[in-house]
Amino acid sequence: MADAGPRKSYTLLTAGTPNGWKPSITLEELGSSYDVKKISLSDNEQKQDWFLKINPNGRIPALVDHTCGDLPIFESGAIMWWLASRDPEGKLFPKDPSKQAEVMSWLMFQMGGLGPMQGQANHFLRYAPVKIEYGINRYVNETNRLYQVLDDHLKDHEWLAADQYTIADIANFTWVFIHTWSGVSLDDKPHLKAWFEKIEARPAVQRGLDIPEANKFKSMTEEEAQKAVEEVQKFMGSTAAPATQK
Amino acid sequence: MADAGPRKSYTLLTAGTPNGWKPSITLEELGSSYDVKKISLSDNEQKQDWFLKINPNGRIPALVDHTCGDLPIFESGAIMWWLASRDPEGKLFPKDPSKQAEVMSWLMFQMGGLGPMQGQANHFLRYAPVKIEYGINRYVNETNRLYQVLDDHLKDHEWLAADQYTIADIANFTWVFIHTWSGVSLDDKPHLKAWFEKIEARPAVQRGLDIPEANKFKSMTEEEAQKAVEEVQKFMGSTAAPATQK
Repeated sequence: MADAGPRKSYTLLTAGTPNGWKPSITLEELGSSYDVKKISLSDNEQKQDWFLKINPNGRIPALVDHTCGDLPIFESGAIMWWLASRDPEGKLFPKDPSKQAEVMSWLMFQMGGLGPMQGQANHFLRYAPVKIEYGINRYVNETNRLYQVLDDHLKDHEWLAADQYTIADIANFTWVFIHTWSGVSLDDKPHLKAWFEKIEARPAVQRGLDIPEANKFKSMTEEEAQKAVEEVQKFMGSTAAPATQK
Repeated sequence: MADAGPRKSYTLLTAGTPNGWKPSITLEELGSSYDVKKISLSDNEQKQDWFLKINPNGRIPALVDHTCGDLPIFESGAIMWWLASRDPEGKLFPKDPSKQAEVMSWLMFQMGGLGPMQGQANHFLRYAPVKIEYGINRYVNETNRLYQVLDDHLKDHEWLAADQYTIADIANFTWVFIHTWSGVSLDDKPHLKAWFEKIEARPAVQRGLDIPEANKFKSMTEEEAQKAVEEVQKFMGSTAAPATQK
């Protein structure tokens, strides 16, 4: 982590996942100075002793705040709140308490709902060593329901909370960003889709998505994405799906 | 919700679940004045239009703050943060920013990890219409791992964050409270067990656990547990994922 130049304000320890992009997009939006330490999940680097001193749970992302005595902060939601609430302009977290309550409600919606449930959808769809239709249905359906909650809300709101772009939007955005991978479509959710495209077009968001490395989901061609969706739909619609649960 | 007496500061809309007890314990610890509106999950009251205006996600708990223009707040983590951060004494959320960062890290650990994962353990263990060993193992094991993270941390810390009892302790406590129900033991986690018993002994915690009604988990026999499972399964039939897994 040692640099030749002057020390930056933060060190972000992260990997290229939705939770990892939340703080990098936040840092880019705030124009903060930060170093990136890429954590190799395939090498289980996040379980090494030095990392556990920063986050005892052994998960990315984590942040070290060099402006505050090398303070360690873990969990993406806590990092976003920390960075945004300390910004004097309140660019991503307004200063008005009742607006903060709105932001926190929708941030927690993502932390406790959308993230964990879409994460389980990915597990059963993409990573589980056996295909378990019950698990796929349960989590893809719940993710789809949560997307519908967002779509309904965005029908009457430009942003999720507080009438401005906030960390609540960023947190939900990074998961919606990989919707194809998770077997969920935006085509029947026009308000969510418009909100998503508006955020995706932001230069700071594009930069944040390329932390700690070029974003693999960006380069996924339409054909590859479509193929991924079809695979999912084929499996989900089929009663003859391989039931390999032992 | 209308009362004969003068209006109280808050109305808490809740049910007797770990997420529901988080705000009731917080309110009891802060000595706040509040009305309780019990939400009947078996009647899907949380999906009715009037409730969705308070929480568009249709989940308990939710709070209405009458001291702040009847402001609605949803998600247990957001409600706890709201109540505790506005307390002038900082009884459950210290005023020092770097200590707040610690509290938020461990609060988010519960919101994004312990709660969702233990919730899935409960689903596969207790409520799923079919027994799926993969799901049971996955979530009970992950819950056990998260408990171990807490136990390791509490070896060197009296409280989870900021050297004081905070909303991070309360949030994690309500889930640890139902550890037996979730198939996880505290017997091999002495530091977690001691922390748990210390919190459980607090009068405000005992009062909060009896909101909105006498806590069924406090003295549940194995027979009553089985009956409770059956009742839940009965009403879950319509919302649970289709039982296609053989």
